[in-house]
Amino acid sequence: MFIKKQRLLTPGPTPLYPPALHAMMASDIHHRTEDFRKAYRSCLADLKEVMGTSHDVLMFAASGTGAMDASVSNLFSRGDKVIVCVAGKFGERWAEIAKAYGLDANVITVPYGQVVSPAQVEAALQAEPATKGVFVQASETSTGAAHNVEAMGKAIAKTGAIFIVDAITGLGTMPLDIDNWGLDVVIGGSQKAFMIPPGLAFMSVSPKAWKLAETSTLPHFYFNLKKEKKSGDAGESSWTPATSLILALAEALKYVKQIGMADLVGNAQLLALAMRTAAQKLGLELFAAGSPGSSVTAIKAPAGLDSGIIVKEFRSRFGSIIANGQGSMKGQIFRVAHLGYFDFADLFALIAGLEIILNANGHTVPYGSGVAAAQEIYANAAIPAAAVK
Amino acid sequence: MFIKKQRLLTPGPTPLYPPALHAMMASDIHHRTEDFRKAYRSCLADLKEVMGTSHDVLMFAASGTGAMDASVSNLFSRGDKVIVCVAGKFGERWAEIAKAYGLDANVITVPYGQVVSPAQVEAALQAEPATKGVFVQASETSTGAAHNVEAMGKAIAKTGAIFIVDAITGLGTMPLDIDNWGLDVVIGGSQKAFMIPPGLAFMSVSPKAWKLAETSTLPHFYFNLKKEKKSGDAGESSWTPATSLILALAEALKYVKQIGMADLVGNAQLLALAMRTAAQKLGLELFAAGSPGSSVTAIKAPAGLDSGIIVKEFRSRFGSIIANGQGSMKGQIFRVAHLGYFDFADLFALIAGLEIILNANGHTVPYGSGVAAAQEIYANAAIPAAAVK
Repeated sequence: MFIKKQRLLTPGPTPLYPPALHAMMASDIHHRTEDFRKAYRSCLADLKEVMGTSHDVLMFAASGTGAMDASVSNLFSRGDKVIVCVAGKFGERWAEIAKAYGLDANVITVPYGQVVSPAQVEAALQAEPATKGVFVQASETSTGAAHNVEAMGKAIAKTGAIFIVDAITGLGTMPLDIDNWGLDVVIGGSQKAFMIPPGLAFMSVSPKAWKLAETSTLPHFYFNLKKEKKSGDAGESSWTPATSLILALAEALKYVKQIGMADLVGNAQLLALAMRTAAQKLGLELFAAGSPGSSVTAIKAPAGLDSGIIVKEFRSRFGSIIANGQGSMKGQIFRVAHLGYFDFADLFALIAGLEIILNANGHTVPYGSGVAAAQEIYANAAIPAAAVK
Repeated sequence: MFIKKQRLLTPGPTPLYPPALHAMMASDIHHRTEDFRKAYRSCLADLKEVMGTSHDVLMFAASGTGAMDASVSNLFSRGDKVIVCVAGKFGERWAEIAKAYGLDANVITVPYGQVVSPAQVEAALQAEPATKGVFVQASETSTGAAHNVEAMGKAIAKTGAIFIVDAITGLGTMPLDIDNWGLDVVIGGSQKAFMIPPGLAFMSVSPKAWKLAETSTLPHFYFNLKKEKKSGDAGESSWTPATSLILALAEALKYVKQIGMADLVGNAQLLALAMRTAAQKLGLELFAAGSPGSSVTAIKAPAGLDSGIIVKEFRSRFGSIIANGQGSMKGQIFRVAHLGYFDFADLFALIAGLEIILNANGHTVPYGSGVAAAQEIYANAAIPAAAVK
């Protein structure tokens, strides 16, 4: 029996940022006090700053799906016509939520690994001018593909519809110009690029979205955007907040601001590029090769090898948790993450481990060859030691 | 600016074992209670078990040097003849302590990187039959060299002298058969293979050493072996114990027992072998090539490159803390650790980083080549995934 450290290399939960973890220990604080209001206000202000938006930003004690639910139940009415882009398991979740609330959804589905094109969305909008909303994932975590939300948003902005973007794994891994690209609702979660445990959901709400809220007739209680906006302005949450997570978030946001959102995105993009290059060097096929995102890279297992074996051996040999494919992709692909608190040392170790697992399972690769490909990417990024602050 | 996680790759403090860290949070416990006595007793019993000795084991709220001091001030008298083996900075510390207490020390000094041989000790014992003690480091942390304490101990056992072994980085990184090799006093510290922060020192005391304590006339107060033995038997410490560290130690010792001391040593030995092989593959010279230990590997910087640059770039590029040479070796060598909570994923990342730093500083090596050498060692150890529990 050897030492092996548990390492989370999954697309959320992310590895935890240690000072945020330590801040959680200070959570014997009451939430209706000025001390806590200070932390709550700073979280809302910092979220707004790092998301780079002038829109209102709200926060819920919920996982990301809670904010997805809120965006439907607060902004739409039964029978509203909407477009739902489905390119994977999380797109399917949008379709399920729309169905649960009785929306009249035009579901545009593409095979796993592909993305819905802006042209498809434009065509659907033209076919149904009464469309009130378009739902999409910025980054579809189940396949590693990223949608072109810039082109979609700019097209949707010209219509009466609002654009609701699940950016739970998109925030911090891809540029998202919320105000200028017409992203009316952008949803995030704490356990992704924000480097803390799950339990907090965020969403930005544009004036166009607030306007739609005025006519919404769907019932809701816990997730009440207007009430939450009013509470937030007073430095409070409507209901009891998840205090430990908010103290952690305040600490993590300090770090995100210190790095800068652009560099946080750059970090994920460079890691993802290095992972893709290494995978190809090892003779592995990328899953979402056409439009790979930088939150997670999905890689096909070699022919004849169940991807579950790779996942299992990462755990048994190295203590590392990587993700299997989801749904129909289970056994076909494995997924490694780059979002949040993740660095090049993590990646080098991950690739070295992958090479060992491939060799142990009949897919012969030269040891160190994938690592070398990732090292080249690091070196070609010409990062002088001094710049890596 | 990119994400880089702080990683301790130094020969102590070791990376922390997370459940031990969590146990420290429970330290609002009073030390004169049955709850705490239970933890204290279990630490003493578990230390005895993992050290594999029938000798008494004592614990102090002190770093390792405290126990070194205690072994002199409690067992010897002014003017006592002793032999001190000096093969590096920690050997020099033995000599300083002996001097501070007025012992009559025969200091056997060898150049940094080499070791004192058992034959040298035997010759010195023959030359002075009145020798009362021999001091040595099991593993000389400043150079990475390991002494042959088995041969030394067996030779000393035949004389009237006792054998005092600083095993602060030796415990958990090399086999130490305390009872059968004649190791009368064996000293350990919490921040090494025991995977918790610094602040606790341990020592085993043989009947032969206790006998010498009867005639010792050196003054001492805080470090009082007899008093501490009596306190320990009652499940207490003589003075206020470092409660948080003891709760952490109790947790870490559970893990050490679960792995087993033999496998913990095997873990360090395999990592050290992989590191040495990788270093040689990268054209680097090992420092203590003749008798390398497994707690730490000391490697010479390439000609013309100050080892401080390598240390600095590990920190600036990757957030990793490795050790420079100490004393006269500063700038000449760098040292990476294998002791304690350290696994192959750590090592792969470390070697990949080293390759990048070497290339960035004019010592061209093929990317991945050192990593591959370490991967081969892992693979040749023929560790089936299922066995890596």
